[in-house]
Amino acid sequence: MKKDQDKNLPIDTTDRVASGGLLSRRLFLNSAVATTVALATTRAAYGQDVVGEGQEDWTLYPGSDALEYGERSRFEVERVKKFKPQVTDASQDYWDLRTTNATTRTPHQHLMGTITPSGLHFSVTHHGIPDIDPDQHAVVIHGMVKNPLKFDINALENYPTITREYFLECSGNSGALWGENARDIQLDRMHGLVSGSQWTGIPLSTLLDECGISSDAKWIIAEGADSGSLSRSIPIDKALKDSMIAIAQNGERIMPNQGYPMRLFNPGFEGNTSIKWLRSLYVTDKPVMSRFETSRYTDRMPDGKALQFSLEIDVKSMITRPSNAMSLPKHGLYEITGLAWSGRGKVAKVEVSVDGGTTWAEAALEGPIHSIMLTRFRIPWMWDGRSAILQSRATDEFGRVQPVREKLIEARGRRPSYHFHGIQSWGVEPDGKIKHVYA
Amino acid sequence: MKKDQDKNLPIDTTDRVASGGLLSRRLFLNSAVATTVALATTRAAYGQDVVGEGQEDWTLYPGSDALEYGERSRFEVERVKKFKPQVTDASQDYWDLRTTNATTRTPHQHLMGTITPSGLHFSVTHHGIPDIDPDQHAVVIHGMVKNPLKFDINALENYPTITREYFLECSGNSGALWGENARDIQLDRMHGLVSGSQWTGIPLSTLLDECGISSDAKWIIAEGADSGSLSRSIPIDKALKDSMIAIAQNGERIMPNQGYPMRLFNPGFEGNTSIKWLRSLYVTDKPVMSRFETSRYTDRMPDGKALQFSLEIDVKSMITRPSNAMSLPKHGLYEITGLAWSGRGKVAKVEVSVDGGTTWAEAALEGPIHSIMLTRFRIPWMWDGRSAILQSRATDEFGRVQPVREKLIEARGRRPSYHFHGIQSWGVEPDGKIKHVYA
Repeated sequence: MKKDQDKNLPIDTTDRVASGGLLSRRLFLNSAVATTVALATTRAAYGQDVVGEGQEDWTLYPGSDALEYGERSRFEVERVKKFKPQVTDASQDYWDLRTTNATTRTPHQHLMGTITPSGLHFSVTHHGIPDIDPDQHAVVIHGMVKNPLKFDINALENYPTITREYFLECSGNSGALWGENARDIQLDRMHGLVSGSQWTGIPLSTLLDECGISSDAKWIIAEGADSGSLSRSIPIDKALKDSMIAIAQNGERIMPNQGYPMRLFNPGFEGNTSIKWLRSLYVTDKPVMSRFETSRYTDRMPDGKALQFSLEIDVKSMITRPSNAMSLPKHGLYEITGLAWSGRGKVAKVEVSVDGGTTWAEAALEGPIHSIMLTRFRIPWMWDGRSAILQSRATDEFGRVQPVREKLIEARGRRPSYHFHGIQSWGVEPDGKIKHVYA
Repeated sequence: MKKDQDKNLPIDTTDRVASGGLLSRRLFLNSAVATTVALATTRAAYGQDVVGEGQEDWTLYPGSDALEYGERSRFEVERVKKFKPQVTDASQDYWDLRTTNATTRTPHQHLMGTITPSGLHFSVTHHGIPDIDPDQHAVVIHGMVKNPLKFDINALENYPTITREYFLECSGNSGALWGENARDIQLDRMHGLVSGSQWTGIPLSTLLDECGISSDAKWIIAEGADSGSLSRSIPIDKALKDSMIAIAQNGERIMPNQGYPMRLFNPGFEGNTSIKWLRSLYVTDKPVMSRFETSRYTDRMPDGKALQFSLEIDVKSMITRPSNAMSLPKHGLYEITGLAWSGRGKVAKVEVSVDGGTTWAEAALEGPIHSIMLTRFRIPWMWDGRSAILQSRATDEFGRVQPVREKLIEARGRRPSYHFHGIQSWGVEPDGKIKHVYA
C-alpha cells in the first residue's frame, strides 16, 4: 500500500478509479459498518490539536426552557433559508400579481440526508397562499361518476392511509441552464425547485371507487381553492395507479404553502399537477385547456410547436457538496455528495467525474433506495489542488441516463423553459474557489 | 361474498381473522397497489353527498406571500404541540431547577407516517437548553488515545457522513404504566417520549480511529456542554459499532433542544446516552459513576438492587389511532394504526387484538422497514358498536415479543421507573368513547 504523495494518508493507489483523484466507492461500501470506510480516507484529515480550553458561558448558567414546538438555533435562521427571488418589474409576468407569484427554493447546499424539512420544501404559488379553515373546506369528486361525494379533512382521516417518501420537482427547476451563458448562481437558485418528503395520504383510487367512476372516464380535472383556481388535467390511469390526496408531510399536517389542508399528489409528475388546496376533482373524458395547461407548463420545441402533457420528471442529479456556496480550504480528501432522482422509479446508478466528463467513477448510494424519491450519493475524492470540473450523471432502473447539456438542447431547442435535466458542472479553481460553468 | 349485516359494505366474512371484527391485513397487502385494498373496506364509508356550495373567502382574494422558512397553519398551532407537563412543587425533584428540568412529548395521536417533525421530537433536559455559538464549540476526544483531537462543526462537515432513520426513546417513556391504577392520560403524556427522525452524522469510529485509541480502552465517557455537564458511560464496542456524532436531523442542522450543533447518537440505546451539546468524549477502561449514571437511569429491581447499564431499548408498540384523544363517531369500518420499534433491529411482526388479548391478528407493516426505527402498522377493523379492548403486540427480528404488563411487573417489580414496554390497552365503550385501561 503506497502512501499518497502529497498527504500523509494511507490511500492505496489502486483505489483510484477515475482520473483527477476519484477513489473507489468500495471505500464506503465494502465494510459491514460504513464507518470503517471513512477511516481509510480521512485519517488525520480535519481534527485539530487540543490546546488549553476555557469554559464557555453556556456551561456556566442554566439554559432556557423547552418549547412546545421546537425552533432552530438563532445561528441558523439567517444561514439557512429558502431562496426567494426578488420580483422586479422586468421579471414580472403580465398575468401575475407581484406579491402572489412567488417561488421559494430549497437550500440544498446546506442540507444533508434526503428528507427536506417541511419548512424548507420549495413552493411555487401563482395566486398567493390561501388561509384555509379546514372545517370550511372539502374536496368534491364529481363529473362522470355515479355518486358525487365530498370529503373534508375529518372524513379523510377515517380512511386507510399510505405513507411514502417522494420527491416533488417543479418542471421549471434548473431552467437557467437552458441559457447561453453559464450564470454563477448558487445551488438553491439553480436547482432549488426540488425537495423530498415523507407524504401520507389516501389513495385517490379509494375515493374514486367510492364515487363509482364511469368506464368512459379518461381525465380528471383537478382544481385548487386558491383565488386563481389553478387547475391541471390528470390522466385517469395515473390517478388510479398511485395518486393520493396528501394530508400529512413528514408526519404532521401539510403546511399552507404545500396545500393545507389537502393536496393532490401525483408521484413522479411535475410539481404543478399536484394541485394544492384541492377543492375539486372533475372526472371527464377529455383534458381541459385551462390557463396553466396552455400559457405555462408546455414545452416549446425547436419547430415552434408546443409539447403538451409532458408530465413525467426525467432522470436527474446534482452535486450538493462541494458547490459554489463554499470553497475548498486545502487540497486533500473530500466527499463529493449530492442527490439523484427519477420520476419513473428508482435511481440505479450515479457516476461522478472530476475531469469534465472524460472519466467516470460510480458513487455509493445511501439505502434503502425509494422509488420516486431523492437518493443520496457520495464518493471520496483526493483533490490534488489543480483545476477540476465536477459532474454527476444519474441512471434510473429503466436505463434512462441523464444527458449532457448539448444533447438536450439539440433535441429540445434552446428555450423550452421546462424539464431541464442535463448534467451540470462545478468548476474548481486551484485556489479552491468553485463556480458554475458549462463544460 | 356476504354483505356485512350492520353496514352496507362488501366485506367478505372470511376476511375476519380475529374476534371483535378484525379483518385481514391482506386487504392492505394483497394488491399490487395498496390502494385497491382500501376500496374493499371503505366503500361508501365517509364521503358525503354534494349539496349546493358557496364560495369561500379565500377563493375570492389573492393569498399571502411565501415565507423563507415555511410555518404551520394557524389552525394547527394550538391543536398540535408537544405535551409539556406543568412542574409543581410536589413533582419537583430536589436536584433540579424548576425551569430547566423539562420534558416535551411527541403528540403521536395527531401524527401520521413514521418521521417525527424536528419541532415535535420529544426532548428531556435536566439543565435547560444552552444557546451555543457553533463557532465557539467543539468536541474533544481524549483519554486513552494517541492523539487527542478536537472537532468543530466545520471540521465535521468535511468528513464522509452516513444518513439513517432511527427512533430515539427516553427510558422513562410509558413510566405511568408501572403504576397501580390505570390513569386515563392521553397518548402523548403516556408514550410521547419516543420519536423517529432521519439522522445524519459522522461515524464515531472514524474519529476514534483518527485519534488512535488504546487497545485497553473499554468505555467512553460522553459529556455535554449544558450547565450540568450531563454525562454517561458508553461501552467502546457500541461506539465502534454504530454510534455517530449527529449534526443533522431530517435534513437540516439539529435544533437546540436536540443538541445543537452536535450530539452523540447511540442507535437503539436509551435516549439519555445520546449526549446532547456534545463537548467531550473521554476514552477510558472503566465507566464513571456520575450523577446521571447512579441517581437516575438505573432500574430498581424487586430485591432492592439497581440494574445498571440497562441501555438497550426493548421491543415495543403503541396504537396511535384510535386512541383516547378521540371517540369513534359511529360503528363501522376503521383503520387501527400505530408504531412499533426495537432497539436491537427491525420489527418483524405486529399483532392486534380488539378483545383484550384473547385473539390476535397480524397487522400490515409499512415498508421499507428500517432497523432501529419506528415502523407503522395498520389493520382494518369493523367495529360493531360493542365494548372492545384494543391492544398491539410487537415482535422483533430476534424473536423478542412485547410482554403483557403483569409479566413485566412480575420480573421487574412495581417501581423500577424505567423501560416499561408492556402491552397497553385502549378500552372502547359502546358510545364510542375511548379510555386507557388495564386489561
